[in-house]
Amino acid sequence: MKAAVFVEPEHVGVREVERPRIEKPTDAIVRVLKACVCGSDLWWFRGISERPHNTLVGHEAIGIIDEVGADVHDMKPGDFVIVPFTHCCGHCEACEKGYDGNCFNMEPGGNAGYQAEYMRATWAGTALIKIPGTPADYTDEQIASLLALSDVMATGYHAAWSSRIEPGDTVVIYGDGAVGLCAVIGAKLLGAGRIIMMSRHEDRAALAREFGATDIVPERGDEAVARIMEMTNGAGADRVLECVGSEQSIESAVRSGRPGAYVSRVGVPHDNSIDVNALFWRNVSLTGGIASVATHDKSTLLKAVLDGEINPGKVFTASFDLDHVQQAYEAMDGRRAIKSMIDIAEA
Amino acid sequence: MKAAVFVEPEHVGVREVERPRIEKPTDAIVRVLKACVCGSDLWWFRGISERPHNTLVGHEAIGIIDEVGADVHDMKPGDFVIVPFTHCCGHCEACEKGYDGNCFNMEPGGNAGYQAEYMRATWAGTALIKIPGTPADYTDEQIASLLALSDVMATGYHAAWSSRIEPGDTVVIYGDGAVGLCAVIGAKLLGAGRIIMMSRHEDRAALAREFGATDIVPERGDEAVARIMEMTNGAGADRVLECVGSEQSIESAVRSGRPGAYVSRVGVPHDNSIDVNALFWRNVSLTGGIASVATHDKSTLLKAVLDGEINPGKVFTASFDLDHVQQAYEAMDGRRAIKSMIDIAEA
Repeated sequence: MKAAVFVEPEHVGVREVERPRIEKPTDAIVRVLKACVCGSDLWWFRGISERPHNTLVGHEAIGIIDEVGADVHDMKPGDFVIVPFTHCCGHCEACEKGYDGNCFNMEPGGNAGYQAEYMRATWAGTALIKIPGTPADYTDEQIASLLALSDVMATGYHAAWSSRIEPGDTVVIYGDGAVGLCAVIGAKLLGAGRIIMMSRHEDRAALAREFGATDIVPERGDEAVARIMEMTNGAGADRVLECVGSEQSIESAVRSGRPGAYVSRVGVPHDNSIDVNALFWRNVSLTGGIASVATHDKSTLLKAVLDGEINPGKVFTASFDLDHVQQAYEAMDGRRAIKSMIDIAEA
Repeated sequence: MKAAVFVEPEHVGVREVERPRIEKPTDAIVRVLKACVCGSDLWWFRGISERPHNTLVGHEAIGIIDEVGADVHDMKPGDFVIVPFTHCCGHCEACEKGYDGNCFNMEPGGNAGYQAEYMRATWAGTALIKIPGTPADYTDEQIASLLALSDVMATGYHAAWSSRIEPGDTVVIYGDGAVGLCAVIGAKLLGAGRIIMMSRHEDRAALAREFGATDIVPERGDEAVARIMEMTNGAGADRVLECVGSEQSIESAVRSGRPGAYVSRVGVPHDNSIDVNALFWRNVSLTGGIASVATHDKSTLLKAVLDGEINPGKVFTASFDLDHVQQAYEAMDGRRAIKSMIDIAEA
C-alpha cells in the first residue's frame, strides 16, 4: 500500500510499504479515507525537532474499519470512524478522569502513519469514534468537520475546556492557526461572552469571526498585552488560550490574564522556560496539555458537528491527494493553507 | 509606641517609633492585641531575601479599632478585628472575582508593621474582618485561631481552594509548616477523602493527623513521588498542595499529580524555574498564589472558627511578648516552634 514517510527535513515522500496487520486483539485496521497535516508536524518538517528518517507520518484521519481484533466488540468492518491522534484504553484512571490523551495504557508509537491507505488503530473499541451511517450520508463540508474531530477541533476545545470558561467570560486566544481557530469554536460552545482573537492575517481573522470571535487584535508582544488591558478596563481577560507554544506567546498569554485567570496551553511547547513567579503573584493558573479527543468528541463535539452547530472543517483551506503529500506540507509551511487535507480514498 | 523592626539579618529589634496616624479617609488605626511571625519572614530574617534595614515588620494581627477615617462606615472604634496581610478595596475587578489578595487598589507598603502596639490599616471598611463581641468572649484557643485567620489559615485554605478539590479527592500536601498544616484543614473543609501529609517531624505529623490528615509520608524527592504513586495505584494524586516554595518541592509536587491534577502553590516562590513541559504532557495544572484572605475569612473561615469546626490556632506552639520578638523569630528559624505568637497587649 502507499504511505507518506518522512524522508528528511523539508521532504515527505510517498512509498510502497507493507500493509499493517492486527497485532493485538484490541486492534483494528482502518482503511483511511482522509487524513491531514497538523501544525505540530511542521516542527519536524522544518527540521526544528528530531524525527527518525523514513518513518510513517500523520496522526489525524477518518476511515472505514476493515478488520478488527478478537477483543473488539463495539466496532465492526464497514463502520465509519474518526481516528484520534491518541488511543485510549477507556478504563485506566486517566481515561476515567477525562484525560484520555494521557491514557496509562497507550501503546508507544501506536496509531502511527495515518497518511497512508491503511493504518493500524490500537485500542479500537474505546479510542475510535463511530460516526453514524456512511460517508455517503454527509456533505463534503461535514466530512471535513468530522476529520477535524481527530485532533484539531478536539485540541481547540481542550484549550477552552481546560481553562474552565464560565458563561460570559472574556476569552483571549493567542494563535490564529487551525487549533486557535477551533479554540474560538470551543470558547463559544462553552459560553464565552467575548472572544478576542489575536490575528494579523485577514483570512484567519475572517474565519475567526465566522466561528464566533467578537474582536480581532493584530498587535503582538507588549503591545498585544497593552491592547488586552485597554479592552478589559485594565484588569485582563478571564481566560487566555495559548495555541502557539512559543515562549513569547506563553509570556504574553500569562500577562494578558486578570488575577485568577486561567491560561490554557495546547500548542505543543517548544520552550521550557516560563516565569512561574509571574503566575504566583497574580494567581494566574497555567493549565492545558494533550487533548482528550475521545472524551470531547463523544461528550460534545460529534453531536455538535452532526447537528450543524459547529463547522470546524472550514479550517481546511486546501486539499491534496496522497501523491502530493509534499505539497500539503509545503502549503502549511508557507502559510498558504490554514490546514491541508489529504484525500486518500473514495468511500 | 513600641514596634518590632528589622535591624539586619538574624536580628529583629524593638524600637520606640511614632504612633501611626490616619492618612486617608479609608484608613483605621488598630490597637494590636496579638501578632505573629510568618514563615515568609524567615527569608529576610535569614538574609536570603533583601529587606531595607530599620523597617517595621509583621503582617498578621488581631486587634481593636482605635480610630477610623471619615469614609470608614462599617467599622468603629472598639470593634474587634482580624487584620489580613493584604488590604483590599472590595470593589475592583480582582476583589469582585474573589482574588482580593491581588486588589488593584492595594496601597504599596500599606498595612506595614503589625508587630507593633498600633498599626495603620488601609481600606479598613473592606479589608478588616470584624469578629463578633469582644476578646473577653473567647478562650485563648479561639483567640489563637482568630489570629490564624489573618494569614496562615487563609493561605492554607487558598491552596486547597485554588486546587478545586472535589469531594473524595486524594490530596497530597508538601510542607509541614504552619501553612501546610492549615492546608490540611482547608482540604478537609472542601471534602477531600484522603489527605496525605509529607512530614518527617513527629510533632507536625501529629498535628496534621489532628487536623485531618489520613496518611503521613516521610520520604522526600524521588522517594516521595514513588511512595505517592504506590499509594495511588500508580496514577498520582488528584490534587497536590505545595506549601514550601522551593524548587525541589514544586518539582516533586508536579510529579505527584495524576493526569489532570491541580498543583496549587502558596509557598512564596524563591525559585523561578520549573519544567513546564512536565505540566503540559500530563495535563497537570499549576495554580495558586497570594491568598484571598478577606474572601475566605468572610465566606467560610470565620464561621468555621466561631463554630469550633476548625482550630487552626494550634499551629502556634510558642508565644513571646513584644520585647522578646527576636526570640519569636529564632524559635521558628530553629524549628523549635511551628509558629510563634507575639502577645502585644491585653484586651
